[in-house]
Amino acid sequence: MPEVILGEGKTPSQVAAIFSRLAKQGGNVLATRASEKQFDAVKKKVRGAQYRDLSRAIVLQRDSTKYGKGIVAVVSAGTSDIPVAEEAVITAEIMGNEVQHFYDVGVAGIHRLLANREALTKARVVIVCAGMEGALPSVVGGLVGVPVIAVPTSIGYGASFKGMAALLGMLNSCASNVSVVNIDNGFGAGYVASLINRLP
Amino acid sequence: MPEVILGEGKTPSQVAAIFSRLAKQGGNVLATRASEKQFDAVKKKVRGAQYRDLSRAIVLQRDSTKYGKGIVAVVSAGTSDIPVAEEAVITAEIMGNEVQHFYDVGVAGIHRLLANREALTKARVVIVCAGMEGALPSVVGGLVGVPVIAVPTSIGYGASFKGMAALLGMLNSCASNVSVVNIDNGFGAGYVASLINRLP
Amino acid sequence: MPEVILGEGKTPSQVAAIFSRLAKQGGNVLATRASEKQFDAVKKKVRGAQYRDLSRAIVLQRDSTKYGKGIVAVVSAGTSDIPVAEEAVITAEIMGNEVQHFYDVGVAGIHRLLANREALTKARVVIVCAGMEGALPSVVGGLVGVPVIAVPTSIGYGASFKGMAALLGMLNSCASNVSVVNIDNGFGAGYVASLINRLP
Amino acid sequence: MPEVILGEGKTPSQVAAIFSRLAKQGGNVLATRASEKQFDAVKKKVRGAQYRDLSRAIVLQRDSTKYGKGIVAVVSAGTSDIPVAEEAVITAEIMGNEVQHFYDVGVAGIHRLLANREALTKARVVIVCAGMEGALPSVVGGLVGVPVIAVPTSIGYGASFKGMAALLGMLNSCASNVSVVNIDNGFGAGYVASLINRLP
Amino acid sequence: MPEVILGEGKTPSQVAAIFSRLAKQGGNVLATRASEKQFDAVKKKVRGAQYRDLSRAIVLQRDSTKYGKGIVAVVSAGTSDIPVAEEAVITAEIMGNEVQHFYDVGVAGIHRLLANREALTKARVVIVCAGMEGALPSVVGGLVGVPVIAVPTSIGYGASFKGMAALLGMLNSCASNVSVVNIDNGFGAGYVASLINRLP
Amino acid sequence: MPEVILGEGKTPSQVAAIFSRLAKQGGNVLATRASEKQFDAVKKKVRGAQYRDLSRAIVLQRDSTKYGKGIVAVVSAGTSDIPVAEEAVITAEIMGNEVQHFYDVGVAGIHRLLANREALTKARVVIVCAGMEGALPSVVGGLVGVPVIAVPTSIGYGASFKGMAALLGMLNSCASNVSVVNIDNGFGAGYVASLINRLP
Amino acid sequence: MPEVILGEGKTPSQVAAIFSRLAKQGGNVLATRASEKQFDAVKKKVRGAQYRDLSRAIVLQRDSTKYGKGIVAVVSAGTSDIPVAEEAVITAEIMGNEVQHFYDVGVAGIHRLLANREALTKARVVIVCAGMEGALPSVVGGLVGVPVIAVPTSIGYGASFKGMAALLGMLNSCASNVSVVNIDNGFGAGYVASLINRLP
Amino acid sequence: MPEVILGEGKTPSQVAAIFSRLAKQGGNVLATRASEKQFDAVKKKVRGAQYRDLSRAIVLQRDSTKYGKGIVAVVSAGTSDIPVAEEAVITAEIMGNEVQHFYDVGVAGIHRLLANREALTKARVVIVCAGMEGALPSVVGGLVGVPVIAVPTSIGYGASFKGMAALLGMLNSCASNVSVVNIDNGFGAGYVASLINRLP
Repeated sequence: MPEVILGEGKTPSQVAAIFSRLAKQGGNVLATRASEKQFDAVKKKVRGAQYRDLSRAIVLQRDSTKYGKGIVAVVSAGTSDIPVAEEAVITAEIMGNEVQHFYDVGVAGIHRLLANREALTKARVVIVCAGMEGALPSVVGGLVGVPVIAVPTSIGYGASFKGMAALLGMLNSCASNVSVVNIDNGFGAGYVASLINRLP
Repeated sequence: MPEVILGEGKTPSQVAAIFSRLAKQGGNVLATRASEKQFDAVKKKVRGAQYRDLSRAIVLQRDSTKYGKGIVAVVSAGTSDIPVAEEAVITAEIMGNEVQHFYDVGVAGIHRLLANREALTKARVVIVCAGMEGALPSVVGGLVGVPVIAVPTSIGYGASFKGMAALLGMLNSCASNVSVVNIDNGFGAGYVASLINRLP
Repeated sequence: MPEVILGEGKTPSQVAAIFSRLAKQGGNVLATRASEKQFDAVKKKVRGAQYRDLSRAIVLQRDSTKYGKGIVAVVSAGTSDIPVAEEAVITAEIMGNEVQHFYDVGVAGIHRLLANREALTKARVVIVCAGMEGALPSVVGGLVGVPVIAVPTSIGYGASFKGMAALLGMLNSCASNVSVVNIDNGFGAGYVASLINRLP
Repeated sequence: MPEVILGEGKTPSQVAAIFSRLAKQGGNVLATRASEKQFDAVKKKVRGAQYRDLSRAIVLQRDSTKYGKGIVAVVSAGTSDIPVAEEAVITAEIMGNEVQHFYDVGVAGIHRLLANREALTKARVVIVCAGMEGALPSVVGGLVGVPVIAVPTSIGYGASFKGMAALLGMLNSCASNVSVVNIDNGFGAGYVASLINRLP
Repeated sequence: MPEVILGEGKTPSQVAAIFSRLAKQGGNVLATRASEKQFDAVKKKVRGAQYRDLSRAIVLQRDSTKYGKGIVAVVSAGTSDIPVAEEAVITAEIMGNEVQHFYDVGVAGIHRLLANREALTKARVVIVCAGMEGALPSVVGGLVGVPVIAVPTSIGYGASFKGMAALLGMLNSCASNVSVVNIDNGFGAGYVASLINRLP
Repeated sequence: MPEVILGEGKTPSQVAAIFSRLAKQGGNVLATRASEKQFDAVKKKVRGAQYRDLSRAIVLQRDSTKYGKGIVAVVSAGTSDIPVAEEAVITAEIMGNEVQHFYDVGVAGIHRLLANREALTKARVVIVCAGMEGALPSVVGGLVGVPVIAVPTSIGYGASFKGMAALLGMLNSCASNVSVVNIDNGFGAGYVASLINRLP
Repeated sequence: MPEVILGEGKTPSQVAAIFSRLAKQGGNVLATRASEKQFDAVKKKVRGAQYRDLSRAIVLQRDSTKYGKGIVAVVSAGTSDIPVAEEAVITAEIMGNEVQHFYDVGVAGIHRLLANREALTKARVVIVCAGMEGALPSVVGGLVGVPVIAVPTSIGYGASFKGMAALLGMLNSCASNVSVVNIDNGFGAGYVASLINRLP
Repeated sequence: MPEVILGEGKTPSQVAAIFSRLAKQGGNVLATRASEKQFDAVKKKVRGAQYRDLSRAIVLQRDSTKYGKGIVAVVSAGTSDIPVAEEAVITAEIMGNEVQHFYDVGVAGIHRLLANREALTKARVVIVCAGMEGALPSVVGGLVGVPVIAVPTSIGYGASFKGMAALLGMLNSCASNVSVVNIDNGFGAGYVASLINRLP
């Protein structure tokens, strides 16, 4: 298992110190919600650390073994949801999974989603990221027979209440195979999906 | 236009008195959210009044002219949403519209909805009733090019918060042709849809 | 129909790329909630694009045909509500409607609203934008016999909770002809009103 | 000043004991939100006590002096708001005020309210009770130049959240002469209005 | 009556234009929640306008007649509540009232409040501003026999929810003579108090 | 320490079985929020068990040793708060404390509270129960120099939101010696106060 | 896969009709949140249907094949959480899983939980049901290396807000292997756990 | 007792003036939530004042007597909770207590907490600071037999709602010895703990 740090709420030197200590254990290390300043502090201490700015992650990948038994699919609705989706992708990848992503397949244009139906049904576990009304996991959940991890995003305005609307929608999903993680918690979704995919 | 009474929060004798007074004006009369006790009081005073128990409406229909120019479609997800949907149906009917309903077409079984796509696209205005995650209006909104009136229902439990989750979902719909009425307000949806359908 | 982009939450280069791609399809293009920086990126790629700073919209209008059958009225209460109202105006205009606006007609000075009553009743559909207590749609709804699209704005402070008070007020409107869109969603209101006004 | 008991949450014998003790002080006594069972217990102990079932009040009025200098107007929107309005009326009356009520003058039928404008402007203080969107105090506030006490009622359903929508609306009133009391607190409004009207 | 502008949410030039137009009517003018930038714009157009930075008000006072019949008392708890209290003070003063203020008399040091009891009982109307738990109006309400206008302030942190805790506390006051205005609405309190104090 | 059972949400036979098993350990046993039906089931199995209906507690007290070093004071505002206060009293008593109660000393009649000031300052720890605006702990906290445990009660209506207003008020108390337990949690307050009072 | 019906919100005859129709397909059938009245209606139509009153489920089990590859563990905190836990158990069982339950292992008595640590680590997926503060999934999540499905229950009072506190706690779990389903949704947890356990 | 100032919401000169005035009384002075700018203003006026940047406190400690009878333990979960924990530490220290802290002992790694069990049980009162799900006080409460003061922190994101999730969790703690202070209120916890520890 990789070692993981939540960058948010820590100073660059705190992140660098923890990252460096964990790196000495020899495995993969991941810092999520990390700023470029935090990365600047990390890279001075840890050779090989990389910054993925789309997902705001600092990554040190030494072990590239594929531990997962199947494909982890990551689905998202709009352009603005991509950072959260990418956090799920990087998490699943560093935990040794093959990841396939399906972006820009929101429910208001259902044909784009349906066009990917066959590919989706080949995944062993599916992560769905969506903001606004958070309807996408219910539709995806109805299309596949495997566990779906829903990630509400804070995308939206007004009555989206920073992801609350999407969160409530997903918790009330009429699809029985959906469970939910915290708003914008792409990491958690990637982590749970990896555990499922690694089950022997 | 029919005269309308909100039965809820009124005594049977209050409802009967108002219904009777409005009936004297000669047009259609509708009492929504009416109990059987209220109907018992009404029918003693107003000949021809009928009770629709599914929608809990008291109806006095004298004028059956079709004022609407097209079809009002009423779509709902689950069995439990039907009473709200029926309130929309009876409202649109008494206001002189041809109504077509599509029940049990929830988003987790998207094929049942898609099977009705062609019929749906023939409507001049669409009402969508859904509880739980309230995702249905977004999907329907993407399928049709006409105005969609979304009605959140109080169906659900736990984090549905008596329709709040569905309401927030609908307000954040990614489909641009969706507007929303109050939770369980089938009447309002039927009324607005009728106005739209009657536009010359 | 025009192509539409939500500017908020996208980088200038993302907006410019999408805008430019949509512009190639030959029709009208609208970017809402767009910053001046986003416009700077767009105008380098798309000849003829204009920025409306009051509504924060980037507009490319090639087709000026009037598709709407009547007038779309846009009503608002205070000076601070005007940006949302203008977003509704620009949306309706680019979708081919004749728009008439009535600003500064709040409910606490009811005579200013009543002075416009006759003009209002000539509209085929009415959009009402209001913050604070959100009472205006109910009063306007009582004055006209056509559909009213209510837009709560985030104007106010304290217990307005960024538009929540206005939103709840509008959802509970005692006028039956009112439906509601998301807080500050002038675009949605303009879009729905246009669909209604274009109905044959 | 009358002695006052909040009936709600007390047993009949508790109410009767307190009422009886207060009655011995010789002045007027009022129990609000009182049940008929509580009244049954009171009337066995206190001669002259009366039950007003519309306002659910137990009243013992010995002093009928008019202490108020002008008229207290009580305005309400719908039939269902009347019990709260009546609680305000009975409170103001027992505190020695001339009260005039204006019922069924909701904002969606603005002409009925305007028809009473002249009468309203003769009041020295105005109480306005309204549920649903709670818009009435803003309109009334704009019509009169005296203090307006707004009482949100719990009338409504769905997103009215038992009076929360009306409460928020009134707190955000754009009319500067409006202050607010708790949901359904007709007593408080009547009390404050009486204090204002009794000011020398 | 003075003319009043809410500065918040308007540009400096908007404020200056409105202020200047109102000033031409010859009476007092007040702009609340005004920034120094807004004042800079106003003073270029309106001779005699002044800026009160504690209350963030722009004031043009031409008429200093005392229209109020008694004293308006303004009471507040902590240092941080003073800006809101001062907004109430300046509003009442510009509306022609004698104002007396009692600051730093919070409920946790009840003796400081009680030391002012006699002075307080001489007021004709009392304004109480408090954040955090919002308990002060209840205690003051119990000490005086006149109307109390409570103003919750947004002072506090954590579970104060920007004044929500104080607002709810005041709405549930066990003192019957308390009515409430919006969070931080010192202006509204000053306005209502002035109306009460001016009653003949 | 006594053994404690939360009666609420358990069947009479579940309560009786647990109570009986705990009674066999030989110490005091307390069941809170217990119904009379639950007591009927308990008394058949456990000799000496008693029901205190004011606090809805089932009590088996075998050890009456006073373990507390001082007095636990229990303060409450209104008649309706007494059941919660009594739950605190019975809890503290069965845990071996001398308890003194001060009822009906709400903040709107501050003199009744101040009349008990000297007695209050003799307590080693103070429990304060209050509903509605929840202001009492702040005032009491300012009068004593010992820890104050605040218990919000669900007493109130409208914007009290079943104790939420009182809870928020207490969490924001300006008195530094106040900590808070859950709404209506008289037991928790009695338990914490007992632990404090038993400290050597 | 079994066929599943949500009993809540349906009439006995609706449940019986759906149950009977599904039973004809020959597989297992489950009705959750079903009343005894609904069961009475079902058993008249479907031979072999059984009622599990602890979980309020109607069950028709024809196929007892174990499709799951490992053990599904179901953990809960208090006696009152057992009905929800049992709904998860019955769901997992009817979907062909070996289930092991661990009840009464709340976090305030951590030793009882730790005593089961070894048994817990043998599960292939863990369901954790908890009300009140909802802390149990975080602790269990730290003890096991497999996916944890957290089910908040509506057990508690006051600030538990019918499971909201537990729900929020679980969504914010500091254990990375936790995902969450709706309040009281034992069925959903059992369903997701079954899908995970059946993965090849 | 030390004199205490809440720095937040005050200007540097206000803080310096108050701090200087209190310092003249000769005892310890503490300013919490103080900025470096506020400290710059204070140190010009008060010799010996120090700034603790971790807890953002300005401290003037003249009296170092140990008034507390035992140890105050301060426990926290993650790195980000340390500032709040440190505010509790500095408060308890300046009030004359021996303080021992236990950081980084969150519930998802229960062994780290259990490794400190013996040390924890030696404390006379325990403060527990935790954000996210706020589960730590329940676990600690089960390990010790003394009063536990729980401090929710605003650490977290999404559905943590700035500490609301942790606050609700702590209020619903299944450990009976837990009481709660406001979100991030390390000062309040340190103050209450000190009062408890100083009890004779």
